[in-house]
Amino acid sequence: MESFIIGVFDSGLGGLTVVKEIKKLLPNVSLVYLGDTARVPYGTRSKETIEKFAKEDTLFLLSKNVSCIVVACNTVSSLALDIVKKNSNVPVFGVIDPAINKALEVTKSGRIGIVGTRATINSNSYKEASIRAHASMLVPLIEEGFIEGPEINLFIDKYFLIFKEKIDTLILGCTHYPLIKSQIKKYLGEKIKLVDPAEEVSKVIYDYIIKLNRNINDKESSDIYFLTDVNERFVKTAELFLGQDISKKIRKVNL
Amino acid sequence: MESFIIGVFDSGLGGLTVVKEIKKLLPNVSLVYLGDTARVPYGTRSKETIEKFAKEDTLFLLSKNVSCIVVACNTVSSLALDIVKKNSNVPVFGVIDPAINKALEVTKSGRIGIVGTRATINSNSYKEASIRAHASMLVPLIEEGFIEGPEINLFIDKYFLIFKEKIDTLILGCTHYPLIKSQIKKYLGEKIKLVDPAEEVSKVIYDYIIKLNRNINDKESSDIYFLTDVNERFVKTAELFLGQDISKKIRKVNL
Repeated sequence: MESFIIGVFDSGLGGLTVVKEIKKLLPNVSLVYLGDTARVPYGTRSKETIEKFAKEDTLFLLSKNVSCIVVACNTVSSLALDIVKKNSNVPVFGVIDPAINKALEVTKSGRIGIVGTRATINSNSYKEASIRAHASMLVPLIEEGFIEGPEINLFIDKYFLIFKEKIDTLILGCTHYPLIKSQIKKYLGEKIKLVDPAEEVSKVIYDYIIKLNRNINDKESSDIYFLTDVNERFVKTAELFLGQDISKKIRKVNL
Repeated sequence: MESFIIGVFDSGLGGLTVVKEIKKLLPNVSLVYLGDTARVPYGTRSKETIEKFAKEDTLFLLSKNVSCIVVACNTVSSLALDIVKKNSNVPVFGVIDPAINKALEVTKSGRIGIVGTRATINSNSYKEASIRAHASMLVPLIEEGFIEGPEINLFIDKYFLIFKEKIDTLILGCTHYPLIKSQIKKYLGEKIKLVDPAEEVSKVIYDYIIKLNRNINDKESSDIYFLTDVNERFVKTAELFLGQDISKKIRKVNL
């Protein structure tokens, strides 16, 4: 029986926060990651371009014989999940539905907030949210390493004030945000529960694999991380997102 | 005689600040602009990827029969000007040399500073500068419209403090910075002179065309702005950079 391989793609390195959660539940499963670091970010681009990139990402993962595809990117999950599904002959998992389901389970007031990239917020996804805000500066700030201090706090105040006392559940609708979760929590207070789509989609994948009854624990996992652009900084950022050094598992690829 | 067409390319819309300066000196010259908005920014990517993109940008402009190519992007001018020249059969103008020449003319102390993207600063360009600093957050801040207020001031303090009292001339080594020139000037004080590569490269192009003795003033200019991704926001940002509405002159192109 062929080994089960989880394919994950993202606009860049943010999707590694999803990989991190998958690894917590499925430490021995093999994984192929594609980060489109040559064209990141997607969240500021048009739907047409995001769809084009998403299709290319999908076809690349399929060429690596993945057993399923996880769309780690909220922007792609929001604007192009249908394109991914249309082009895939293996199951596809986006991050939106698992996050929404969790938010609906957690909320008491029914008032849910969503924060994400401009493309995600302007799309029709996360319809269940009553307050929606894009936080476009957070991705570059986090990628530049401003994960604590006055710079990130200034923008947390700017983008998250709208949610204060208005909701009881907030979906962190971008893969980068888990890195500043503690600062967001501190700013919003304990009364607002945070939903991390990375955690939720990982549970869905775990359940899916368990149901398949595929033995994935019989060997060491062998992961490969394909990036469309590689430089020293990307390797460091990858470590920041994943919590481990993957420099030896990184391969450069042209899409 | 065929009409003279200036080709200009940039990683995105920042190069429109160069177009603006060219238009001041040569209001009736025709111009073809290429902004790679599907893959902006270049300044965080590797040399290899920047070279690949620069070659594609060059070949596109040549296919439009331009009479010369202006590399408006400091990142490309720093890392891939040789690639552009190698692939071009028309004259190529980068922004580095004109800026350096102006800085050497202006400085009295001989102490010149350069601020730019990470790729520009890490490259060997602007060798004459004695203090070098990347200011990676400025591009996303300006693109998000933070051109005044506490957000941009926080980062101006962060990135420009190193220059205070240390230099007498500062090269603004990224097309976006002219939009916050007045804030930078206010922060650094009158004693530090700012050099804008956009102004300097425009003078070089003006001199070049005058020497050619080509009549470019006999008709209305007809400009086209090719973008690799188009959305509403890009059209607005273009207006911010150029100071005029060009929505009817924008064409979408796939490279």
